[in-house]
Amino acid sequence: MNLVQSLEQIPLFEGLPPNQLSDLASIALEKTYKKGTTIFSEGDPGDGFYVVKEGRIKIFKISSEGKEQILHVFGSGEPFGEAPVFEGRRFPAHAETLMDTVCIFFPRKSFTDLISKNPSLAMNMLGVLSRRLRRFAALVEDLSLKEVPGRLAAYLLYLSETESNRSELSLDMAKGQLAGMLGTIPETLSRILGKMAKQGHIQVIGPKIKLIDLEGLQELADGSKRL
Amino acid sequence: MNLVQSLEQIPLFEGLPPNQLSDLASIALEKTYKKGTTIFSEGDPGDGFYVVKEGRIKIFKISSEGKEQILHVFGSGEPFGEAPVFEGRRFPAHAETLMDTVCIFFPRKSFTDLISKNPSLAMNMLGVLSRRLRRFAALVEDLSLKEVPGRLAAYLLYLSETESNRSELSLDMAKGQLAGMLGTIPETLSRILGKMAKQGHIQVIGPKIKLIDLEGLQELADGSKRL
Repeated sequence: MNLVQSLEQIPLFEGLPPNQLSDLASIALEKTYKKGTTIFSEGDPGDGFYVVKEGRIKIFKISSEGKEQILHVFGSGEPFGEAPVFEGRRFPAHAETLMDTVCIFFPRKSFTDLISKNPSLAMNMLGVLSRRLRRFAALVEDLSLKEVPGRLAAYLLYLSETESNRSELSLDMAKGQLAGMLGTIPETLSRILGKMAKQGHIQVIGPKIKLIDLEGLQELADGSKRL
Repeated sequence: MNLVQSLEQIPLFEGLPPNQLSDLASIALEKTYKKGTTIFSEGDPGDGFYVVKEGRIKIFKISSEGKEQILHVFGSGEPFGEAPVFEGRRFPAHAETLMDTVCIFFPRKSFTDLISKNPSLAMNMLGVLSRRLRRFAALVEDLSLKEVPGRLAAYLLYLSETESNRSELSLDMAKGQLAGMLGTIPETLSRILGKMAKQGHIQVIGPKIKLIDLEGLQELADGSKRL
């Protein structure tokens, strides 16, 4: 397989036109590593990003007690280090191969040059990422509509209890944090609150939430009812 | 709230430096619509993308029988039309307001000009999207590790039955399609196959999968065991 064909298979470049894949191939370098090789260390300048072509790598941190904490394991087709590199930051963790591994390396400098000469590459990559994001958001929504309403109902009932059974609550957490705690994204959380309001369980009054139907919320929370 | 402050709150621009937010604000236009207004129609040139500032819009198609099929509903902070606009395509569906709505509009031409003058804006936006994508991928993995192994086990057992109890199967679907069918992403699917192999339920031999522990797979499939 030549480099352009490899790049075509990488979700990050999915659907880019052939000339832009060739441009990318012209700056890409194939790098081969033995098992157990350090690819970069925490704090190294983000001078380029990687895509695993074959093999497997781990991203990890070392705790203050010297214990290794694995954050991610990436395999074939998956990029790593790209977010700090795009943003011009240092690598926030270590990367090491878990087996003999081949990576494709994109030097930051060449990549930036490519984009300024050819903004439509950036536009297309933004498009690719937006589409992937939308698909993922839909998946997260699909998956979380099963469980998150119950967790949210439980949390609302808990809040009302700790606030001595007041039925009007203010969510003191930012929506993003609350969504994170419940295992979803803010957009889905808003949708669930809207659905709860429509079904008469709660009323949303500006930043406040009024619990209307405690019994219904209890049933959502214990899973005996679905939203 | 001024425009820069509004842009700051939009996940698509999360964490962009103040000067790049001002650059974006300088090309952005606020547009106010009454309830029931068409923002764009299917087939219109993608001459710019939108972010909902206040209100709610629906994205929909009209079926050949004239029935409306809603694809998405977007509210405050959510972009729409951005993927086709980034990629220079036409809008693939209609957009209409569900209530009085204010949108922020980014003309494609000004946005492309901004990026070619200032590639680091593109780099930062790629970084923002990559980070969001990684968070979403982690969420999808978290959420799907509960249910997908069971569905995958059921599918493997089904395949083995239809192929007259052959224990060595080839997944005839592309990994992306299979992942989509099971409600996850290819990366998570690979991880689950790896875990199944590690626990001795299956053996992965190149493109083929050998079923080793039919009983264990059955337990995964009926939910009496977790991976």
